[in-house]
This record gives sequence, structure tokens and C-alpha cells, in this order.
Amino acid sequence: MARLPRVVILGAGFGGLAVARNLRHVEVGVTLVDRNNYHLFQPLLYQVASGLLDPSAIARPVRTIMRRAHNVDVLRAEVTDVDLDNRRVITSGAALDYDYLVIASGSVTNYFGNDGARTHSIGLKDLGEALALRSHLLSCFERAGLTSDAIARRRLLTFAVVGAGPTGVEYSGAVAELIKHVLPKDYRRVDFGEVSVVLIEAGGRILATFAPRLSRLATRSLQRKGVRIVLGESVRSVDESGLTLSSGDRIETATVVWTAGVRAAAPFDLDGVAIARDGRIKVTPSLNLTTHPEVFVIGDAAAFEQAGALLPMLAPVAIQGGTYVGKTIAARLRGADAPAFHYRDKGTMATVGRGAAVAQIGPVHINGLIGWFIWIFVHLLYLVGFRSRSLALVSWAWNYFFWDRPVRLIVTASADD
Amino acid sequence: MARLPRVVILGAGFGGLAVARNLRHVEVGVTLVDRNNYHLFQPLLYQVASGLLDPSAIARPVRTIMRRAHNVDVLRAEVTDVDLDNRRVITSGAALDYDYLVIASGSVTNYFGNDGARTHSIGLKDLGEALALRSHLLSCFERAGLTSDAIARRRLLTFAVVGAGPTGVEYSGAVAELIKHVLPKDYRRVDFGEVSVVLIEAGGRILATFAPRLSRLATRSLQRKGVRIVLGESVRSVDESGLTLSSGDRIETATVVWTAGVRAAAPFDLDGVAIARDGRIKVTPSLNLTTHPEVFVIGDAAAFEQAGALLPMLAPVAIQGGTYVGKTIAARLRGADAPAFHYRDKGTMATVGRGAAVAQIGPVHINGLIGWFIWIFVHLLYLVGFRSRSLALVSWAWNYFFWDRPVRLIVTASADD
Repeated sequence: MARLPRVVILGAGFGGLAVARNLRHVEVGVTLVDRNNYHLFQPLLYQVASGLLDPSAIARPVRTIMRRAHNVDVLRAEVTDVDLDNRRVITSGAALDYDYLVIASGSVTNYFGNDGARTHSIGLKDLGEALALRSHLLSCFERAGLTSDAIARRRLLTFAVVGAGPTGVEYSGAVAELIKHVLPKDYRRVDFGEVSVVLIEAGGRILATFAPRLSRLATRSLQRKGVRIVLGESVRSVDESGLTLSSGDRIETATVVWTAGVRAAAPFDLDGVAIARDGRIKVTPSLNLTTHPEVFVIGDAAAFEQAGALLPMLAPVAIQGGTYVGKTIAARLRGADAPAFHYRDKGTMATVGRGAAVAQIGPVHINGLIGWFIWIFVHLLYLVGFRSRSLALVSWAWNYFFWDRPVRLIVTASADD
Repeated sequence: MARLPRVVILGAGFGGLAVARNLRHVEVGVTLVDRNNYHLFQPLLYQVASGLLDPSAIARPVRTIMRRAHNVDVLRAEVTDVDLDNRRVITSGAALDYDYLVIASGSVTNYFGNDGARTHSIGLKDLGEALALRSHLLSCFERAGLTSDAIARRRLLTFAVVGAGPTGVEYSGAVAELIKHVLPKDYRRVDFGEVSVVLIEAGGRILATFAPRLSRLATRSLQRKGVRIVLGESVRSVDESGLTLSSGDRIETATVVWTAGVRAAAPFDLDGVAIARDGRIKVTPSLNLTTHPEVFVIGDAAAFEQAGALLPMLAPVAIQGGTYVGKTIAARLRGADAPAFHYRDKGTMATVGRGAAVAQIGPVHINGLIGWFIWIFVHLLYLVGFRSRSLALVSWAWNYFFWDRPVRLIVTASADD
């Protein structure tokens, strides 16, 4: 029996999973490598950070997802090196030889070299950060109720979110609702007139990738919830007692959430590979490296140009790229040709709190409650296959009817590995 | 207006909450102090550790529980000192003067001076430990799939539980089921013939507080699940590669779960107060200190003798003690007398896995599926008022029908405070 071709996939995000799924019935041996034992449904991460969902509602063990894919082996390990010439991946757990490699390693928070921001702010890219942010936010209210120092109290009760892309907008909307409707019942010693949420955006409007009208609607919706929006200001520095804007204005705060940008995650060096903006790897129209056609790059890690711009770092781009690469590998093994990759934009959406979302599907712009129902429908659709779908629904329904946030636990889990 | 009498309650466990609830409509100002912001439903903690329940299913913010008790103030702080003579509690957050003090500080794991056990084993008393244990157990399977060293692999796949009281029995039963029915589907590289669960008990039988017949039934049930039970052996030492029994026998293991004993938690010194076995504080028939009648002690922290023995460290004892103290304080404020405290044993129970439990209600002994349904019913009854009740039911039902453990996430939350 001939040895099966080996496919190694780096990353079990939306892209990596799509590749593995499309290779399920192909005669290959697949190894799916990720540093975590779970796949994370990133679009809902801000809901864990704001105490609306349990981690298990948006994270699921990769092994469980791949249970029925008998040719897929799952490896929980850090990738330390990729040797393109010898077609070999070195990980903390094992060395893996490959015939095809798919780099689907996603992205990490981009601090743009701002060391203060790196040290004194919290990102919103992984589950550990979301849980830390949830605990931190609640701790601020606990501590604010104890201090008689007015300046310290204002600092504890000011929450700054940097970057008004979907993550920044969704998180600040969720936190504003938490502060307006839920926390006053629990923290009776806190004067909620002193609490403020500030959303800071360097550009001229929030949700810049959406149509201007939707930006305006989202702005109004956030403002109604009490979010202060600062436009045209970048963050010059962050320190332990607050942040300084590019204008020199100062915001005293104990909480800076940094969603101002992401860059491709590159835990390893790729010798001689061309890198584009934000650390993304340049690829051919077939999503592979020019120098190594057996190496594919998808999702946030790939710099793929279409219609004069790099594709955005969004789940649908990763999923379509992963599906394409899975099919392309299968075609190549059959000796067939594969067409070039083409991303089909099926629309984008962002929620701005309970009962309000903006959605942009081609020329159609939707907002308000209808947008919100579409948002829920689409996200539940994506969550198909998750046990968590039912739990997420229960949590949402609860939140909707009782204006409550169920998961307000300050837990410091002991580290372990 | 006269100053309201001040009641300070240390600990928001079953006992502390019962005191506060019974003082809701009494003319007093109550401060409830706990180091965590949540009340933990400890009897189900082993289910978090075995990946069956989310933390939020068994933990709920104290502030939310006390939302409608307008005379109860909640303080999240560590208690550092109690000054009995000046009637004052010092905490990390504030100093609190009291007219009545209730010590309901519960218990912690007792390592009986065994430093190796303290360093190299995991307790099962708080949420952080349960989450660490869940991650550790799954990591052992991840690592076992990667090593070709047979000795290291056996060590990773051997799970030792020390102490066969309800917690040890319930946890080993749950882990055995996880190993038998769920993990083989995920860890296809692991030879499950190499996996073993060992339950070690110094006494002559497991569940020693139950009737001998129920012990025998529980023993048979655990053995059918594959748990090896070692009786009449204590643990002499624990180190990083395993443990040594009192007989000199050695068990190589990477996982030692220590449920061999608890002792009263005493984060502060009480000058001149008499201490009984396991650090428990001696009390009068009215649950107060002989020297300070305004200071009550309840639950695990109290050494209350009834029928020639100290009351066991169980939730019902704490709840009945808390109710009694709440009513006694109210009576004293009215100038009335309160009768002595008397604990009514309404029965004890322990589950030994899916579909099997033992229950002892006075002269009635119940086991098997009926015992299990009673167990579920009683625990759901206790969980009343928890949002988690519905979620716990969903999780249980899922587990029952699909033999699955939903929460198998290895999460290392970033520490924060």
C-alpha cells in the first residue's frame, strides 16, 4: 500500500477547520495543529468578555469537531519552526513531514510598536484575554465601591475601548448595556453617574468598512446607550493610570481594551517568503507561495489581493479560502487543475447591543431590530454543530427577557499545562 | 433615628447566605464578606472538574443573590484580622465594626502536614482548583498521545484520587465514565487499556459515613466503571512522579487529586478562643463563643457536638446553623430567648456516576437509578434561585442521552485582580 500524502494544517480556526473538513473523504493523512485544544468562535468572543456567554458556548474541542473525520489527526502543540525546503514542521510536541502545508495561523493584536499599550491594555483575541477582561471589569466595580478617593474612583469607573471596528463597537455596546441595565442592581454603593465608556477611533467614523449611513446609525445607537465616541484621535501612549491621545488630551482609566488592529500571527520564520502589510504572507491567485506551490496560506495570515485591495481579516474569507484549498489539494492529487481563488462577499454585520445591529449585504443595508434578528440567525447558523448552540440560545433568551448578564464571575483559574 | 445594629457575616457559603436571608426583614445592617464575588455550589464542584458543567452553572455572584435584600451589603475582600474585644473585623478592603459577628468561613483542604501532597496534588475545594484539574486531566491525554516512552505514558494515564468520602467517590466515578465513554472518541492515539483510575482510602471502606451496605453497592458500582479501589492504605508521600503508600507500594502518576480531608479555614487568629479537632472553633449550644456571646460560628468552621460527635462538614449543617443564627439574632434584638441549636439530619447522598447514587434517609437506604433520581431532584431543589438550574438541566440531559461531556476546554485564564 502506498503511503498516503500528508497534509499538515497550522491552526484550527475557521480556515483550518474548513480545509480539514474538505479533505475528510480524500485519500490523505491530515494533521491539524493548534496551540489550544479548542476551536474558538471568535465573532462572539466579546460576549464572553462582557459576561453574557460561558466560554464553552463559543469554544469546542478540536478533537470533538473532527471526531468523524477518521483521516484527521489533531495535535495540540506550539509550532516553533517551518522548514520549507525539507517540507517539515517542528512543533513543541512532534516534528511533522508534509506533502502539503496549509498556514492558517490567523492573527494577533497589533499594538503598532506601542509598548505602553502592550503592557497596560487588554486585547480581545483569545479566550484567556476575554476571561481576564471580564474579571478585571467586575473588579473595577468592586474596588470603586470601596474607595473614597474621587480621582481613583473615576479612573476605576472609566472604560476606554481603542479602535472602532466591529470588535470595538460590539464590545463597547455590550459593556454600556451591562453598565446601564445590570450592574446598578448589584453595585448599590457605586454612583453610576460616574461611570463612562469611551470609544476611541483614529479614523473619521466608526465601522469604517460599512456604508456611511450604517456608521451613522451605529453611532447614534451607541450614543443612546451612553458611549462617548472620540473620532480622529489615535492613542499616543498608555500607562498604568490612563492614556494620552494624539491631541495631548488625557483620559484617566484603569481599563484600556485594545481592538485597534490585528496583524498576522507569525510564530515562526519563513525564509525568503514575501510579506505584505500587517505581516500577512503574499500568495499567488491559488493561495500558495510562489516559491513553494505545495504551501498554502489562508485567512488572516494571507495577503490576497482582489479588486485592488487585500481581502479583509474576516471569518468568511478564511472559510472560503479553506474550502478552496481543501478542494485544490484534492484536485491536484487527481492531477486536475483548480481555478484561481475568488472571494465572494456575502455581506458583513455588526451588533451594537441588544436588539440592534447593522448589516450590509451587497447593496442592501439593514439596521435596527431586523438587522439584529438577521445577525442572530446568521451566527446561530455558523454555530451549527456546536452543542453550545442550544446553550447560547438559552443565554440570549435570558438576557433578552430579564436584561441580565448571567456570567459575572471573577475567577482566577490556576495555570496549568 | 437610632443607629441600626450591625451584623457582619464572614463567608458567603451555604451558612453565610442562610444567615443573611434570615435577616432580610430584620432591622439590622448586614455586611456579607467573601474573598470571591460568587457563592459556590460546592456539592457539584466535581462536575466542573470532570468537564460536565460550566463554572457558571454552580457559581453565582453574591451581589445578585442578595439583590433584593436591601439591608445586606456585599463586600469582596480578604479578612485579615478579627478584634473580638473591640468588635471589629479588618479586611483587605475596609474595617468593619459589628454588634454581631457570624463566622461562616468554611473549610479548606487538609494535607495533614504532608508538604509533598500540598505541592504535588490538586485539591477540590474551589473553582480555580476544579478548572485547573479539568485542564490538567485533558493535558495528560494530549501529552500521552505524543510520547513513545512507555513509563512516562503510563504515568500520564494513571489518575490517583486520595480519600473515598463523597467528593473522592463522586469525582473518581465521573472521571472513570469520562474515560470509558467519552475520551476514546477524541484521543484515538491513546491506548485506553493503559488508562487507570485508583481510589485510595485509609479506612476499611469507601463512604464510611454511610451504611455498610451502601458502601458495598458504591464499591461494586465504581469497580464496574473500572476504578481500582485501594483500602486500608494511607499516602505516605507525594512527589512529582507519583505517590508512595503507607505499605511502601508505589503508584507512578502525574495526577494526584487530594480529597482526604478538610479542616476549618482560619485566615485570622482568634485570641483566647478554644479550638477543637480540624481547626474547628468550639461553640456553646447557641452556636456562639463562650467568651463572646455576640460572636457566632456555623458550618464547617464550628465544632458543635451533638449525640456525642461533632456535626459533619456538610451543606445542610451550615444551612440549618445559618438559619438558626439569623433567627437567634432577631430574637435577641427583640429581647426574646432562643432555644439551643439542634441539627436535624434529613439524610445524606452521594452519586457514583451516571444513573447511580446512594442515599441514606434515616433508616431508609436507597441506591441505583432511584437513588440517582432522588439525588438529582434534591440538588435541583437546592439550586432553586440559580439561573444555572435550567442550564444544569440541559447539560445533564445532554450527558444522559449522548454520553458526552460538553466542557472539555483547556483554558489558562490570565490572572487578574
